[in-house]
Amino acid sequence: MTLEFDGTNYLGWQSQARGRTVQTILEEAVRKILGKRSPILASGRTDSGVHVLAQVVNVKGNFPMDDKALLRALNSMLPPEIAVTKAETVPADFNALKNAKWKKYRYQIHNSETRSVFDHRSSWHIIAPLNLAAMKKAAKFLVGRHDFASFMGSNSSVKTSIRNIISLEIKKRGKMVIIEVVADGFLKQMVRNITGTLVETGRGRIKPEKMKDILEAKDRRKAGQTAPPQGLFLVEVGY
Amino acid sequence: MTLEFDGTNYLGWQSQARGRTVQTILEEAVRKILGKRSPILASGRTDSGVHVLAQVVNVKGNFPMDDKALLRALNSMLPPEIAVTKAETVPADFNALKNAKWKKYRYQIHNSETRSVFDHRSSWHIIAPLNLAAMKKAAKFLVGRHDFASFMGSNSSVKTSIRNIISLEIKKRGKMVIIEVVADGFLKQMVRNITGTLVETGRGRIKPEKMKDILEAKDRRKAGQTAPPQGLFLVEVGY
Repeated sequence: MTLEFDGTNYLGWQSQARGRTVQTILEEAVRKILGKRSPILASGRTDSGVHVLAQVVNVKGNFPMDDKALLRALNSMLPPEIAVTKAETVPADFNALKNAKWKKYRYQIHNSETRSVFDHRSSWHIIAPLNLAAMKKAAKFLVGRHDFASFMGSNSSVKTSIRNIISLEIKKRGKMVIIEVVADGFLKQMVRNITGTLVETGRGRIKPEKMKDILEAKDRRKAGQTAPPQGLFLVEVGY
Repeated sequence: MTLEFDGTNYLGWQSQARGRTVQTILEEAVRKILGKRSPILASGRTDSGVHVLAQVVNVKGNFPMDDKALLRALNSMLPPEIAVTKAETVPADFNALKNAKWKKYRYQIHNSETRSVFDHRSSWHIIAPLNLAAMKKAAKFLVGRHDFASFMGSNSSVKTSIRNIISLEIKKRGKMVIIEVVADGFLKQMVRNITGTLVETGRGRIKPEKMKDILEAKDRRKAGQTAPPQGLFLVEVGY
């Protein structure tokens, strides 16, 4: 299944002891249809407050309806902030987590003197004008296979912090600065930490060339702040 | 001043005995700057839940700062759903209500089988595919100077229900059907009642030619339902 959700009032994807998560709500809807619990596996977790345009998840079960009817049934039970946009039958060995080859994330920065009342749930408001040329120059150092330890959030238990950034684009649409990153995988808060550092570059506080040193330091303290969650969108998962 | 606000959690513009209104919040911010109360006059009221891209309001007072500083001071005190986008000094006889010559409203319909988690606060979700050609044909009967009593909400105390619709455009942008109406003035819930009736036409329940009879009946019961408030935006006020 492919999911879309507005992360504003959710503690991210993964089930937790406390608070609303998207996984808990979707598993409850599936349980009502199947008549029993069936765990749902996602392409990866998303943090609290982060949005999703197309998360891929898989669930096993003998559903008493076709895919189209299942899509309708699930959407009728989900809250307005969560929608299933696609439901399709896949081979039994499909694994949404292990089979994911790449992911695309988007970060939105509303770069304007006045805030936007309609975009404040889906962007980071930066008043200081950002120098896009400097940001693009800095971003080039990040593309490729590197150890991204300087951009990894704490309390992460991954085996390696080496990832391959396939592309990193920065563009402007009206007052919105959009950063799009495609990689074979992402570390905890990696896009938000890269964004925070790129913003420091755009404000002139960090020189673009400094990005190389930050990357090579493999030290989280050398990079910029973590950008807030509401500007981040999981856009696509490739298989 | 020009204001932008997300009407989702507000009881519209005008101060009321109960509940949060935009006027109450803005007057409180102005009071903090002036040191005394000064009533704020708007180009007109907006209903509960309706959004605003550019409402024009005027306030009298000797502000201890220039217009740019006033804009910043007000925005620093307003909640995230309300922003002042412009502050300018005008002649003492400027009257935001009486001097308004025309207004432009936009209504957004998300026309798709699946709902949108990001647009549900700013659009009306209609699953049935809408026939835009039929809607456009019906809309033509409404343009011009007419008695719009069939499209006026109840409990309204206006002297006359005659208004002049200068233009009424219907267009599609992706899954969004957008209705834009410019008129010299609007009756209570007029755009929402027109939209509800146009949607009936788009669904094939009312023939486009029937719009003429509905208009001439001057009877609210002859027209369609009132479209919900969250799809409506006050776009511009002309002086």
